[in-house]
Amino acid sequence: MKHLTEIEKAYIAGFLDGDGSINVQIVRRKDYILKFQIRFTITFFQKTTRYWFLVFLQKKLKTGTLKKRNDGVSELCLVGWQTVKLFLLAFKPYIRLKRRQAVLLLKIIDKLPQSKDPQSFLNLCELVDQIAFLNDSKKRIIDSAVVRSELGLDNYFKSP
Amino acid sequence: MKHLTEIEKAYIAGFLDGDGSINVQIVRRKDYILKFQIRFTITFFQKTTRYWFLVFLQKKLKTGTLKKRNDGVSELCLVGWQTVKLFLLAFKPYIRLKRRQAVLLLKIIDKLPQSKDPQSFLNLCELVDQIAFLNDSKKRIIDSAVVRSELGLDNYFKSP
Repeated sequence: MKHLTEIEKAYIAGFLDGDGSINVQIVRRKDYILKFQIRFTITFFQKTTRYWFLVFLQKKLKTGTLKKRNDGVSELCLVGWQTVKLFLLAFKPYIRLKRRQAVLLLKIIDKLPQSKDPQSFLNLCELVDQIAFLNDSKKRIIDSAVVRSELGLDNYFKSP
Repeated sequence: MKHLTEIEKAYIAGFLDGDGSINVQIVRRKDYILKFQIRFTITFFQKTTRYWFLVFLQKKLKTGTLKKRNDGVSELCLVGWQTVKLFLLAFKPYIRLKRRQAVLLLKIIDKLPQSKDPQSFLNLCELVDQIAFLNDSKKRIIDSAVVRSELGLDNYFKSP
């Protein structure tokens, strides 16, 4: 993101704070040993009538995927820990309203390499749970309790 | 607005583009000779749980009135042509998504002094009508047709 000026970064951070989302979710993945994946996303929203603005943002950021939803809203979406980490490192100094989300995602991303076993992965999922409180999340999501149960870690407290 | 850095202005403009409003409305005023007033507003919105952010914006801008609405959303509102003009002149270079609104309001504000007679006031109200198209306005508003009718200018085309 070194191609962007400070002013461009400040503008984009302001727009993200106003009408964007910094999110991390637990998603089910049948092909994964640990059954779940932690997915990181930065999303910019806009009415499809002003799609040009998301194209402009995509050109500025030189990354992200555009999507026209069928409800008249379009999205520019940055997915994956590498892309999201680069974005957050560049924009964190300018983000204000969603700074706690930015800090949380960076913390989770940093712990990813040490979460190859079920118990450490579950610990990471417990960190993911915190995003729901920060993001006024209303949709049903997979939380750490689901992961604990499906990875057979819920009898942890039942041991003699 | 000279106390703000370029980075602060860019951030605030980004936030306004994302979750704010640049608006001009025709409002009824019984105490006005021309029966109506043209009202200019810049509004920043945020969930009342994050009221601190609007207080932060108010401190930065050194202007605006805070309001807690009863639907869980709060507003920081800049009202009046003087305040709005100062704001728009300072922020127009950074505003992108709502730049046409900014340009329109400045145009209307500049024509205010020459709109003391009914016909020029009506011409100005016709400019105000354009904001509805830019702002995805859904609420019923007083448009220039209402002003034309109530100021007795609607028989203009009926003259022999």
